Amino acid sequence: MLNSQPPMALDGVRDQIKSIPLDNIAALAKSAFNNKDIIPLWFGEGDVTTPEFIGKAIYEALCAGNSFYSHQNGIPEFRQTMATYLTGLNVKPVEMERITITSGGMPAIMLAVQMVVNQGDNIVIIDPVWPNITGIVKMCGGHTRSVRMDLGDDGWILDVEKVAAACNDRTKAIFFASPGNPTGAVLPVEVQKQLLELGRKTGIWIISDEVYCRMSFDQKVVPSFLDISEPEDRVLIVNSFSKSWSMTGSRLGWVVHPPSLEATMAMMVQYTSSGTTTYLQHGGIAAIRNGEEFVKFMTDYSRKGMEIVCDALDEIPRVILRKRPTAAMYAFFEIDGMKDSKKACLDILASSKVGLAPGFFFGKGSEKFLRLCFCRSPDQLHIAMERLKAALK
Amino acid sequence: MLNSQPPMALDGVRDQIKSIPLDNIAALAKSAFNNKDIIPLWFGEGDVTTPEFIGKAIYEALCAGNSFYSHQNGIPEFRQTMATYLTGLNVKPVEMERITITSGGMPAIMLAVQMVVNQGDNIVIIDPVWPNITGIVKMCGGHTRSVRMDLGDDGWILDVEKVAAACNDRTKAIFFASPGNPTGAVLPVEVQKQLLELGRKTGIWIISDEVYCRMSFDQKVVPSFLDISEPEDRVLIVNSFSKSWSMTGSRLGWVVHPPSLEATMAMMVQYTSSGTTTYLQHGGIAAIRNGEEFVKFMTDYSRKGMEIVCDALDEIPRVILRKRPTAAMYAFFEIDGMKDSKKACLDILASSKVGLAPGFFFGKGSEKFLRLCFCRSPDQLHIAMERLKAALK
Repeated sequence: MLNSQPPMALDGVRDQIKSIPLDNIAALAKSAFNNKDIIPLWFGEGDVTTPEFIGKAIYEALCAGNSFYSHQNGIPEFRQTMATYLTGLNVKPVEMERITITSGGMPAIMLAVQMVVNQGDNIVIIDPVWPNITGIVKMCGGHTRSVRMDLGDDGWILDVEKVAAACNDRTKAIFFASPGNPTGAVLPVEVQKQLLELGRKTGIWIISDEVYCRMSFDQKVVPSFLDISEPEDRVLIVNSFSKSWSMTGSRLGWVVHPPSLEATMAMMVQYTSSGTTTYLQHGGIAAIRNGEEFVKFMTDYSRKGMEIVCDALDEIPRVILRKRPTAAMYAFFEIDGMKDSKKACLDILASSKVGLAPGFFFGKGSEKFLRLCFCRSPDQLHIAMERLKAALK
Repeated sequence: MLNSQPPMALDGVRDQIKSIPLDNIAALAKSAFNNKDIIPLWFGEGDVTTPEFIGKAIYEALCAGNSFYSHQNGIPEFRQTMATYLTGLNVKPVEMERITITSGGMPAIMLAVQMVVNQGDNIVIIDPVWPNITGIVKMCGGHTRSVRMDLGDDGWILDVEKVAAACNDRTKAIFFASPGNPTGAVLPVEVQKQLLELGRKTGIWIISDEVYCRMSFDQKVVPSFLDISEPEDRVLIVNSFSKSWSMTGSRLGWVVHPPSLEATMAMMVQYTSSGTTTYLQHGGIAAIRNGEEFVKFMTDYSRKGMEIVCDALDEIPRVILRKRPTAAMYAFFEIDGMKDSKKACLDILASSKVGLAPGFFFGKGSEKFLRLCFCRSPDQLHIAMERLKAALK
């Protein structure tokens, strides 16, 4: 027996998975992981390590024996802490039944998409957009329909009529991030209300990615979809500790969902992750309770980075940046005369040792753009911008 | 505006998700979480906390600044450590290109299923089986076809001809665990070879859950599918640190896959989790390098628990246990005259404060069975068994 030849493994992967490009920021950056000569501005990640008080809380919880399976929705103390935090931060109260803790923002979005997308369904995404949402939807057997924001002197503006026109009877959700990645654009309350109204009329879900909500350079928190929606609206808010608490490597996030979905979310968490790392959730409690100072520090750090980067970009004639971002951690700028954003990134990487993300990852129409993460030390950003000035002459 | 009524949120969840029962062990146990009066033998979890040396390695890595995004396949040092470990443990060498680190065994299985199952496809599962696989397949739009092992005086035996007969042209994978949960049954090498041959002939994937491979009471490691398969066979091995290293609350696992799937796995990890908690992976390295003594301790601990529990079960006339388990952490026994395993569990919980898992969760034909996790302290098991003796009179 065992004389037969094995069939090729890769051929056995389902077509939808094979159709997802392997080409993404992580793949681009892989060759340069741990190469200290390169200034890595390609990821959505600052250079500040996770604060010590959070690390201590994680370790203390582990030492205290919190090393067993968690509740699927998250440990009750954490859910209550989060509900209290959100109630204080936003306009309307949030009950703990609406909170489910996840192993990061990405699993939060995956859960949201898994919950609503059948094979052949679609999700309307607001573009330019973080490319991962497209990969997630494809993994779930769906596809994305893109609505591009309009870029004017006031920055990126969303026309909700275009969103409505993009929806069809297979549209199960509208996804957007505010503040946006890569644009930093903040959706005004009036636009959010139009989106909510569209969702209510059609039954289409709203998936609101609010990961950068605390990283605003001109307000304490940007308007949340929580401010305008009712608990039982078809609205899923996804968020994460990655950015404002510098916890990218930890994998900790949350979803705010209708209270009627509490048991459904628990079941889905059970079958995707079994629940979030238990002692890490104690770190999350500490982050919420004692992290306000750090959140302000991170926002200020990012704002300073934005100023250094935008000042330098202003001095490069080929760079077109209509309006400075007022939130998040990215400059998303056009290069006059650039045809191929990926080739440009590879050239800049080779010649200048600066890692940037090519615009084409962020949707059609962004081929002439580059994304730069400015949430890094001023010293490093000054060096990076000097190098870029030389490279983009 | 905003006068319209929101449609019911729960109605907007896709049918396949709504079809997954919310009734599972976690839901059953939820009411008793943190109730110290109850002896919880319902979970697949021991009562030993994560060993100190692993916790220290996690914390030291975090303090050393390993708090940023990880490689999608896992940090190279960990993948190499795992490859070396598996090469030493099993018959054939394993290259690091075949290792992808995951946030636990559950995400490992979810990745495997997402990779091969389209809507309407099926996976053949070997029953009695851990219920989560069914939930995972349903979430991915597929369904399961069940092949029940035969229970005789030698324990649970798999007839591969029944497996072949259960496969049809929409079968994308065969899933089994060896040692099994809840049975503890170990698939002999000859049976594994028949399954491999079936997979090669049909192109159907083999998903081999080897989470309990080190928890054998009569050998160092049970036969792995790695021993008989070639790297490019359509075989996915899923494993986890949860059981043998007492890390259920940590969420750390791995997949061994064909080398040609390395980039595909990286892409899928990117879109489901962004990668596994970075500093936790350093804990995994420590667990592999310095954990052999602990692994032996856990196996011995579970074996002692098995003896206490089986000795006591022998004294209960209504209990039918054909053969003592030789691996894992469960007694899976029949109760003569019991009609409804869930009602029995609730009755035992109410009268005796012992938490057991009802057989019906583990597949059709197991309605008269109960599952008991014996990987707990002898003192607690003695008390639990005295209570059970009274309850099952």
